[in-house]
Amino acid sequence: MASLTIALDAMGGDDAPRMVVDGMFQAAESLAEARFLLFGDRAKLEPLVARHGEAAKGRYEIRHTDQRVAGDEKPSQALRKGRGSSMGLAIEAVKQGEAVGAVSAGNTGALMALAKFALRMLPGIDRPAICTVLPTMRGQSVVLDLGANVECDAETLVQFAIMGEAYARTMLGIATPMVALLNVGSEEVKGHDIVREAAQRLRDTDLPIDFKGFVEGDGIGKGDVDVIVTDGFTGNVALKTVEGTAKLIGHHLRNSFEKSIWSKLAYLVARPAITSARDHFDPRRYNGAMFVGLNGIVIKSHGGTDAFGFANAIRVAHQLSAERIDDRITEDLRHFSAAATAVAATTGAPG
Amino acid sequence: MASLTIALDAMGGDDAPRMVVDGMFQAAESLAEARFLLFGDRAKLEPLVARHGEAAKGRYEIRHTDQRVAGDEKPSQALRKGRGSSMGLAIEAVKQGEAVGAVSAGNTGALMALAKFALRMLPGIDRPAICTVLPTMRGQSVVLDLGANVECDAETLVQFAIMGEAYARTMLGIATPMVALLNVGSEEVKGHDIVREAAQRLRDTDLPIDFKGFVEGDGIGKGDVDVIVTDGFTGNVALKTVEGTAKLIGHHLRNSFEKSIWSKLAYLVARPAITSARDHFDPRRYNGAMFVGLNGIVIKSHGGTDAFGFANAIRVAHQLSAERIDDRITEDLRHFSAAATAVAATTGAPG
Repeated sequence: MASLTIALDAMGGDDAPRMVVDGMFQAAESLAEARFLLFGDRAKLEPLVARHGEAAKGRYEIRHTDQRVAGDEKPSQALRKGRGSSMGLAIEAVKQGEAVGAVSAGNTGALMALAKFALRMLPGIDRPAICTVLPTMRGQSVVLDLGANVECDAETLVQFAIMGEAYARTMLGIATPMVALLNVGSEEVKGHDIVREAAQRLRDTDLPIDFKGFVEGDGIGKGDVDVIVTDGFTGNVALKTVEGTAKLIGHHLRNSFEKSIWSKLAYLVARPAITSARDHFDPRRYNGAMFVGLNGIVIKSHGGTDAFGFANAIRVAHQLSAERIDDRITEDLRHFSAAATAVAATTGAPG
Repeated sequence: MASLTIALDAMGGDDAPRMVVDGMFQAAESLAEARFLLFGDRAKLEPLVARHGEAAKGRYEIRHTDQRVAGDEKPSQALRKGRGSSMGLAIEAVKQGEAVGAVSAGNTGALMALAKFALRMLPGIDRPAICTVLPTMRGQSVVLDLGANVECDAETLVQFAIMGEAYARTMLGIATPMVALLNVGSEEVKGHDIVREAAQRLRDTDLPIDFKGFVEGDGIGKGDVDVIVTDGFTGNVALKTVEGTAKLIGHHLRNSFEKSIWSKLAYLVARPAITSARDHFDPRRYNGAMFVGLNGIVIKSHGGTDAFGFANAIRVAHQLSAERIDDRITEDLRHFSAAATAVAATTGAPG
């Protein structure tokens, strides 16, 4: 594999720039060929980098800017004055072809606005979606949209299905991922018009998507399918409900083991097993959500993550770039347009 | 407290009628004053009842019908031919004033259709919602709508907020429950028009509702507020996502403890603490969702529950009847209408 360069917003995130720098060195170890552009305040970055001595020597470069996008900046503000910021410059590096992808733990709305403005949409895609991988009983599943679009029409959901399917092939290595729409029941009559119309379109197409119809909320954890498609409102609520439920259960487990001296001793005995189970849900392991649908790879890291989590977001950017997810999505969309046109020609339905 | 009679659909649910009969006897023990009407097949019910000997003697009565609503029956079919079924007769007993509430573990859609037809809506309420209590880090919260209305306008969400607030006062005994709308962010600008408009109306009213604005999906587990209001699509997905995540974590914990002979021994030591934590999430403890907004109390039990869970659904019906939740909702709505009219008069906005 040729050397791939990843652009990093060194100043975004609660513990930036330190966790970005440390995360870069962690990722550099496992991605032996990768190179990095580190955008941010040189005076702050150099001492952090120096702590790693000769590691990854010659494989990263600091690009100075003293501007950064604040955590509470509105997308419109970021568009007006954020293009010279560490976030804006990281995206610009992707646009200019200096980097194959950008990673930022900064403000999500600003990152989306800057990325859409600089990179534009892939041909055939109307709106980008936020896409990630979640743990299930069978392994992992792809879920999108996690909050980019609070309202979606049927056509948008179909585009999300195509992009999510490409994401699952790329990130999970599944040859023919099973795809479903999130709904309040599995029967065809369930749900609102938009989700039913999207299902109808996905059934009608000749595109080789293994469309399984509808799954309910508990299908996310069960891993009934590989790709779960929904609007950004429902997806965001579902993602945060998963996080909240995991925290709630952790909280009650901790309380139970802290009740008495006996339960505290029991915890010492049980700790290896509990830690092993908890590792499955460590949000840092799943850190790195892609803004799919853009003409370039932009990965959003959780703002509160640490070096371990940020390194994982870098690995997501690297893998998606190496496997050329953009090309896969574009190719799939071309097939889909052709199939939709053919269906329209035979049925008289709008294509 | 005067004796309250609860009507039971003895034939609905996977393990009916046995779990209904056993659940009735469990509930009868803790609700010393309650009486029961048991609707179903007398030939099946009598031997089940006989197993309990002299317990609850004189406090229940079997009302025979050989008709039942099937699990896969459509609401329209249930309306046409289900009124003489065990489910239909239990609801009819509420309408006729023979019972203060009905409990069924049968088909949700059929139960909702029969209940709406027989009982009609409370004055000022356009649509019923499914409402339940979920565990949180602080205790319990009320969540609605869990699936009765997949699409809701702002006015409907406001009505749900009023009903949910009354539900929290009645079931959780909180004098001034905190109420919030489920959204994708806590800032006022977040979300779609409907949820923002509902928030505006709840802020504008003089009704003494402690409205806290928006909560995100993880606010359900954290217990940020006492009442979480959302449309039936999002609420259903969130509820099932909670269930799926809890199952997923249980699955991984089990796997971890089954890995080796040592981890199996560790489980024996840790079991009391794990069982105590798990009890907090036992869905049977939270069994019994109310169809709020109807002119009468109808409680839906989970179809797959057992006697312990069904007894809890009966307790929900009993408590809501004893505390006269219908009157509270009606009273609140009258205040709200007056307040909305006053706001409209001063601002010129539609009331």
